[in-house]
Amino acid sequence: MASEGDDELEVSNKQVILKIYVTGSPKESDMYVSSNGTLSLKVPEGTNGVVVKNLYMSCDPYVLIQLKKPDSNSSKPPILKMFKIQHTNVPLSYYTGILGMPGLTAYCGFHEVCSPKKGEHVFISAASGAVGQLVGQFAKLFGCSVFGSAGSKDKELVCLTRVGSLTNQHFFSKIFSNKVDLLKNKLNFDKAFNCKEEPDLDAALKRYFPEGIDIYFDNVGGKMLDVVLLNMRAHGHIAACGMISQCNLDKPEGVHNLMHLVLKHVNIEGFVTYVYVHLFPKFLDLVLPHIAEGKIVYVEHS
Amino acid sequence: MASEGDDELEVSNKQVILKIYVTGSPKESDMYVSSNGTLSLKVPEGTNGVVVKNLYMSCDPYVLIQLKKPDSNSSKPPILKMFKIQHTNVPLSYYTGILGMPGLTAYCGFHEVCSPKKGEHVFISAASGAVGQLVGQFAKLFGCSVFGSAGSKDKELVCLTRVGSLTNQHFFSKIFSNKVDLLKNKLNFDKAFNCKEEPDLDAALKRYFPEGIDIYFDNVGGKMLDVVLLNMRAHGHIAACGMISQCNLDKPEGVHNLMHLVLKHVNIEGFVTYVYVHLFPKFLDLVLPHIAEGKIVYVEHS
Repeated sequence: MASEGDDELEVSNKQVILKIYVTGSPKESDMYVSSNGTLSLKVPEGTNGVVVKNLYMSCDPYVLIQLKKPDSNSSKPPILKMFKIQHTNVPLSYYTGILGMPGLTAYCGFHEVCSPKKGEHVFISAASGAVGQLVGQFAKLFGCSVFGSAGSKDKELVCLTRVGSLTNQHFFSKIFSNKVDLLKNKLNFDKAFNCKEEPDLDAALKRYFPEGIDIYFDNVGGKMLDVVLLNMRAHGHIAACGMISQCNLDKPEGVHNLMHLVLKHVNIEGFVTYVYVHLFPKFLDLVLPHIAEGKIVYVEHS
Repeated sequence: MASEGDDELEVSNKQVILKIYVTGSPKESDMYVSSNGTLSLKVPEGTNGVVVKNLYMSCDPYVLIQLKKPDSNSSKPPILKMFKIQHTNVPLSYYTGILGMPGLTAYCGFHEVCSPKKGEHVFISAASGAVGQLVGQFAKLFGCSVFGSAGSKDKELVCLTRVGSLTNQHFFSKIFSNKVDLLKNKLNFDKAFNCKEEPDLDAALKRYFPEGIDIYFDNVGGKMLDVVLLNMRAHGHIAACGMISQCNLDKPEGVHNLMHLVLKHVNIEGFVTYVYVHLFPKFLDLVLPHIAEGKIVYVEHS
């Protein structure tokens, strides 16, 4: 609510404040809501400051890392410049997803970290997530065969997609029987499986990849990574994007099969997206026409 | 013992035959010695075959991998060509060590896998081994600061070095109080420590590397790798050369801290040396003058 004074405009400013660093899963008691503050909308004179209003917020797994106590040796992100949105013929919310950090993560993680070659077998875990769904589509467009796993419970999903321009948006909803259905029938994956339904993950991967895995895009870490190591092909690449299965554990699970890195000349590369922020214009040039032509779709809520 | 016939020369041919694939540590019962065979020294007519006599054999950790059941996805080495030794002003045995597979492994592992920059902090485990001692010396010559760990029991070592040419060799022996002494006082490491004497490895690494580790050359895997992950610097490199601490275990230990790959944009690259065999001439050009000038030394037995 804005109240206009002589010199400045003040608005109420609802804030969610982190009380303590989160350990394990985030709890409501880790934070509190403050409604008391007000914020001046006047930019201090003589500065190039701007006042920002949040319209959309993306609830990424990455946010959890920000809520936890930082490691002193962690990679320090540079200050990201704000930029004016030039392409307005897409829904505004896309800039928190396919055209934002998750999109750039998928693009750079696949093209810069995985060193893909046409025809290679790509496996993606948490494949229906904000990043995974795009990695799969980029890999398909590049000419790879794409397999995804999801840890879906077998329930119906109402999947919303948003189309149209910034000022003229439409929503479409479609029902999928589960995430595996979504991967195969909306996101164009060659194969997909529910890892929660596989009693023997190693046997499942050997069945899905009789020739082995060339590229593994890892969003989950832990047991899945361990079993993938057994099934990597010589000279394969693993992009370690996230390890969501481990985030809420007090002590991460052990990965036992790292000797396969040596035996098969395989690398695991952890990466943080801000390193590739200079590639953002190149990324937009690639992805915007694909969105316009419907060759890439983006599921915001499922 | 050779016996000359009309057409061919036959010799007795003592063989060590592997009976079954080794599991865990190799046991004498895994193999047997056969003294019954004879071998014709006549090369079949019309072929370019050669008859080979073993003069030296290197007992590398790599041999253990060859004795174990091969993984169907393992990297398949190409047939290595035999070559005539051109440089005879070094002891012949060097071609099984510093000028052979361990030397090329150290050179390529450091220069091709670790992407080193001058001034970086390099940590090497099993640093007094056939490969480790050379990685340390290459890293020093390149301009890095070099730290090594050894799992030495605190006992005196008689260290033999061989100098001179193929036909005129001399041995020098020198006594070191232990492997740490050897690393610091013969192999020119900046610092070295005995990992078996450190009750808290993480605390030890934080003490030795207050700014973190840029490059870790891993010969041991397991617990050491796990603790190093906590102490890597952002954008660091880990070369996974071997995991000797795990070789004799029925089930390898778990590595828990892989999330640090993501947090710090670190990569682990497993590698097999045969991939770099085309670099052998370049490697010889680098290392032979260093041997001649005494800038690189090689400890064959310690």
